[in-house]
Amino acid sequence: MEKIKINIDNIYDFVSKDEINAMKQEIESCNALVHSGEGKGNDFLGWVNLPSSITDEEFTAIKKAAKNLSKDAEVIIVIGIGGSYLGSKAVLTALADNFDFLKHKKKDPVIVFAGQNISEDYIHELLKAVKKNEIAAIVISKSGTTTEPAIAFRIIKNEIEKRYGKKQAAKRIAAVTDAKRGALKTLADQEGYESFVIPDNVGGRFSVFTPGGLLPLAAAGVDIKELIKGARDMEAATGADIPFENNPACIYAAARNALYRKGKKIEILASYDPKLLYIAEWWKQLYGESEGKEGKGIFPASVTLTADLHSMGQYIQDGERTIFETVISVDKPDSEVIVEKDTDNLDGLNFLAGKRISEINKMAELGTQIAHIDGGVPNIRIELEKINEYTIGALLYFFEKACAISGYALGINPFDQPGVEDYKKNMFALLDKPGYEKEGEELRKRL
Amino acid sequence: MEKIKINIDNIYDFVSKDEINAMKQEIESCNALVHSGEGKGNDFLGWVNLPSSITDEEFTAIKKAAKNLSKDAEVIIVIGIGGSYLGSKAVLTALADNFDFLKHKKKDPVIVFAGQNISEDYIHELLKAVKKNEIAAIVISKSGTTTEPAIAFRIIKNEIEKRYGKKQAAKRIAAVTDAKRGALKTLADQEGYESFVIPDNVGGRFSVFTPGGLLPLAAAGVDIKELIKGARDMEAATGADIPFENNPACIYAAARNALYRKGKKIEILASYDPKLLYIAEWWKQLYGESEGKEGKGIFPASVTLTADLHSMGQYIQDGERTIFETVISVDKPDSEVIVEKDTDNLDGLNFLAGKRISEINKMAELGTQIAHIDGGVPNIRIELEKINEYTIGALLYFFEKACAISGYALGINPFDQPGVEDYKKNMFALLDKPGYEKEGEELRKRL
Repeated sequence: MEKIKINIDNIYDFVSKDEINAMKQEIESCNALVHSGEGKGNDFLGWVNLPSSITDEEFTAIKKAAKNLSKDAEVIIVIGIGGSYLGSKAVLTALADNFDFLKHKKKDPVIVFAGQNISEDYIHELLKAVKKNEIAAIVISKSGTTTEPAIAFRIIKNEIEKRYGKKQAAKRIAAVTDAKRGALKTLADQEGYESFVIPDNVGGRFSVFTPGGLLPLAAAGVDIKELIKGARDMEAATGADIPFENNPACIYAAARNALYRKGKKIEILASYDPKLLYIAEWWKQLYGESEGKEGKGIFPASVTLTADLHSMGQYIQDGERTIFETVISVDKPDSEVIVEKDTDNLDGLNFLAGKRISEINKMAELGTQIAHIDGGVPNIRIELEKINEYTIGALLYFFEKACAISGYALGINPFDQPGVEDYKKNMFALLDKPGYEKEGEELRKRL
Repeated sequence: MEKIKINIDNIYDFVSKDEINAMKQEIESCNALVHSGEGKGNDFLGWVNLPSSITDEEFTAIKKAAKNLSKDAEVIIVIGIGGSYLGSKAVLTALADNFDFLKHKKKDPVIVFAGQNISEDYIHELLKAVKKNEIAAIVISKSGTTTEPAIAFRIIKNEIEKRYGKKQAAKRIAAVTDAKRGALKTLADQEGYESFVIPDNVGGRFSVFTPGGLLPLAAAGVDIKELIKGARDMEAATGADIPFENNPACIYAAARNALYRKGKKIEILASYDPKLLYIAEWWKQLYGESEGKEGKGIFPASVTLTADLHSMGQYIQDGERTIFETVISVDKPDSEVIVEKDTDNLDGLNFLAGKRISEINKMAELGTQIAHIDGGVPNIRIELEKINEYTIGALLYFFEKACAISGYALGINPFDQPGVEDYKKNMFALLDKPGYEKEGEELRKRL
């Protein structure tokens, strides 16, 4: 994999090369388990070969549906939570212009998200804002009954049907859901929505390359074929046949587990480009939800630098020494801006005149890397040539694969999320959902 | 303080009431130190009485300057980093409509930020996006030489001067800087920019109630008088004369230090309203930069719920038991949206019909609270009546005061940030800043 590289040279002050080498066999076995399907959670391994198994027919169908939704819509409301939200949000933010929101005329429809919270103001303000816009919706939910997106979809569906009538509304709504079962599947069949499948064996946080991620992205004008091409090449580069030394997913999984075993309990994902903000949010779900169980797991946190060098920077440099840092380092920006010379030079920046902003950013990055290592913070670097569909696709698959290997090395099932049910049960009980009355009574006593 | 309350009832499974009571005297002494000025970092206590000392003349001057900038500008570019960015960004995001960016016609100018990163694409895309907009700028920097904002200001100043000529440009730029010294002060005097002062004795992360926070907010149409009124009332409610039991800042400081001493090393600030996202970012700077030193300090992290219950929720519920949670709980939303009945009830949500979204959100919050406590995560609640200028002003001052007390209880100087210099020195060296040549040579060998 030419366009993404991993570099763990800067962990060796904290974990020796011998210690990493001693993990090779363990980590290769974990990777083999992902492929053999003999490990924990093996009914959720559908994501492993997803990039290489998407057919041209599937691309065509997704693109066609996206085009149908886009052609009459200025705003497409994407309804989903967790993996059905963060995947497309992450890719969109990475590829979009930072200031798209300022532009009045837009080539592609604006994508907005709903159903990822239960904020009354959020949904109210959304409805108000799109009053005069042509709208469409993509609803993503395996069951169709997850509270947050189900509430939002009731409201958005009502709005679309009120505006366009039930028949036309059906053409403005697409569903991504279970192949056979569930409330949303039933509704989609009944109303005749265009619909796509999230395979049974792909969990939410591993679903970015299913239509749950691809349909919103295609509707926003993203080149999903390039995205999948990147993922596909990374799938090949991290296969069970690729030895440890050449396998970036194995190396990342080994490095972070080695550091964790030495007491580095918090991993901070850092980037020097604000466009990667939601890649970090997606990564937090992927790793937090996969590894945070049985009283174990690296705590995933993130920063956007250099902004946060003036925020979390002090803590990273001098706080509790339980941190390591993983930096997504981008080599080339899209644009060119040069610092100009100033006659007065009051700000003393003339030593930078003629330099590109990205060169200064790179020196900030390297200077920070050295400062943090000197401060006791091991550093892992993931090096991207550029930010584009291809590299982002590769990056996301890299993280997925490394996460699965890492989870097996930790000894947990990286594909379940038993803890997510706890708040739901309590919420249903407090809302007097039929069947939960007794629990509701008990819980109310504790408030 | 009626409109903000603190509730630590849900930490007592982890820290006993006796243990908290035993801290009263210690915490009251720390608060007294903040007021007596006899503690560490006492040359940076200007923020303590800032809300109560702002005069009507100062309000008038800020509002006048904001109006001057706003009247001809569609977009105001606010240039600053750290506290000169996060304070106004946090308040703006809290008070803005979630979907303002979709509206074509706006009452107030759009505020965008620059100088908080060194991204070449960011500045390029900003310049491109505002090509056809009338623009103005507010530059906030004590010295005027901090690399990130100084670079951005060079570029934005050039752009404004190129468009409007040097004389008109001077009317479109306002500076918030040192009273007497520094590159920006010199430039502002030379060019005749409207300028305001960040007092010497107020550090960046405590500067939201200086003109560094207030001028951008006033320009965006925020009622800064109400903001300060809230802060002022909280200043009174957390004074040295207010006993522990009635002093929310003392209670918060005691609770979090008690938990930290018991091994709860990570504090997650959670809210159920996406508008509070940047309040959490501001809070991370405040606490991370104040406490993260000498190998100590609670690691500050944040989540937006219920979105992140489908992300970090699993970790919080079941991961390493070194976490506690502080929830900003908002009682009343601005808007009203009710779940409607659906004839088919395929999604099974009819048990919610007739309920307001905010009621469901509240039950999610309370259900989560119980689930997390049962999972071993102590819970601190900060209860806000509503989100508005008054409560946000009070909330920010509350956090500042509690942070100072907390830092003294931790035994560090909460007002310095020695670790922030380390990356800067390395960056200058790698960029061959005059005087750093030798260090540059040494560092390059390490790359």
